[in-house]
Amino acid sequence: MDTISKALSHGGVQGVYRHEAETTRCPMTFAVYLPPQAEAGPVPVLWYLSGLTCTHANVMDKGEYRRAAARHGIAIVAPDTSPRGPDVPDEPDNWQFGCGAGFYVDATQAPFDRNYRMWSYVTEELPALVAREFPVDMGRQGIFGHSMGGHGALTIALRHPGRFRSCSAFAPIVQPSTAGWSMPAFARYLGDDKAAWRRHDATALIEDGHRFPEFLVDQGTADSFLNDGLRPWLLEEACQRAGIGLTLNMREGYDHSYFFISTFMDDHIAWAAERLR
Amino acid sequence: MDTISKALSHGGVQGVYRHEAETTRCPMTFAVYLPPQAEAGPVPVLWYLSGLTCTHANVMDKGEYRRAAARHGIAIVAPDTSPRGPDVPDEPDNWQFGCGAGFYVDATQAPFDRNYRMWSYVTEELPALVAREFPVDMGRQGIFGHSMGGHGALTIALRHPGRFRSCSAFAPIVQPSTAGWSMPAFARYLGDDKAAWRRHDATALIEDGHRFPEFLVDQGTADSFLNDGLRPWLLEEACQRAGIGLTLNMREGYDHSYFFISTFMDDHIAWAAERLR
Repeated sequence: MDTISKALSHGGVQGVYRHEAETTRCPMTFAVYLPPQAEAGPVPVLWYLSGLTCTHANVMDKGEYRRAAARHGIAIVAPDTSPRGPDVPDEPDNWQFGCGAGFYVDATQAPFDRNYRMWSYVTEELPALVAREFPVDMGRQGIFGHSMGGHGALTIALRHPGRFRSCSAFAPIVQPSTAGWSMPAFARYLGDDKAAWRRHDATALIEDGHRFPEFLVDQGTADSFLNDGLRPWLLEEACQRAGIGLTLNMREGYDHSYFFISTFMDDHIAWAAERLR
Repeated sequence: MDTISKALSHGGVQGVYRHEAETTRCPMTFAVYLPPQAEAGPVPVLWYLSGLTCTHANVMDKGEYRRAAARHGIAIVAPDTSPRGPDVPDEPDNWQFGCGAGFYVDATQAPFDRNYRMWSYVTEELPALVAREFPVDMGRQGIFGHSMGGHGALTIALRHPGRFRSCSAFAPIVQPSTAGWSMPAFARYLGDDKAAWRRHDATALIEDGHRFPEFLVDQGTADSFLNDGLRPWLLEEACQRAGIGLTLNMREGYDHSYFFISTFMDDHIAWAAERLR
């Protein structure tokens, strides 16, 4: 693992790191913020998964998470959203597929199955690296994310309820198997077998019996993707039927940007902190 | 004035605007954050001047100012750092001169005197526009900035002590007339007459009798520009001799980046808020 940069911020250390990933067969870059409490011993770790087009840097630059993370003594890890590099198949003109659009699945379809294995990367390879290299307590993990990364957080939490103590999302894609911006990607990464899709769809996972204690979701009412791509009411219905606790905050006038995310970042970190104590 | 974008954030509105500037003879872009209190009437306004290579966007994206600005009910205006465009003379390979490096002076030397009039732009034209277009109380203004923008904030406050009630800076260039990264720019914008330079040098302005009630300065000890370009002790000496109050916080281990600035942003906005009440 190489250190790309390190800077003191809000009393802790914001670092950017790179390693040769086996799962995605390319160098992967990620960001880790260690709060000041990490100097005294392992701290809980909160995973933030980013949305379409993002890298590790968007939330690091615009997410405004360090102040709250330092106060609560929580490390924040921000992975990239896909494999990248000259050997990774991509469609540079398509922001909903390929680089920047890994959708947190393990592709099964050629040629994408060689590199697009973000599910394994985010749930296995990177956690093992983080546990080895940083002073974090892997017994106290939470996960959250934005948009495509909200989808990632919800599905990963539902399939690892024993690993994560908290899960929340900003404007998540709650039913990617029926949303216009994710269906083409699911078809090309996972093929036509809809059973494979259901394992990467939060509402379908709940229907199929997966459970998580409770979710927090914030959603802007002025989000231009609300009605076509996001549709948090589908998660609300699934949670109600399954008896899963859901705090869904519809935020009047907020859009899909980091201006929205940063506004409610403190709330999500506080939500995680309560459950990571 | 055209509205480029507007987004709700921390209860207020973060906007980006563009107008045809007369002073710089080119379109100029700037950012304004209006806190929620602006819906009820005019709010105090705090000017943030950015450093070398920056536009209005750096502090808007990375400065983490909106939470505190919303709490204190203060508007934040972030101008660009220079004229820009195809008709503006520039040296793209030189980050310390030309576009992104206006140094908040009115150039007197050809060909730069046609566009590089950032002093007039920031102290006259943009304030007139902001007063006309936004619900701000121009009787309650503060100013702050970073690096080259800290230089701008200090010199503008010293020459307009009746206009500004507060002035602070992150890692300011306190004596640009003797610093390696500003002397070449001063020579080319202002010519060889050192008397003209003194009017754009905070320590020289204080020596020459200009006064401001008190300054707040935060400076990282791990800032790679500390000893050559910044040298806050020169401001400290000038303030001591002149009886100007200076709170100089040397911040152990912090660098020159927005990871540093965002850490102490709350303190600077609180400092301004106390004086803008």
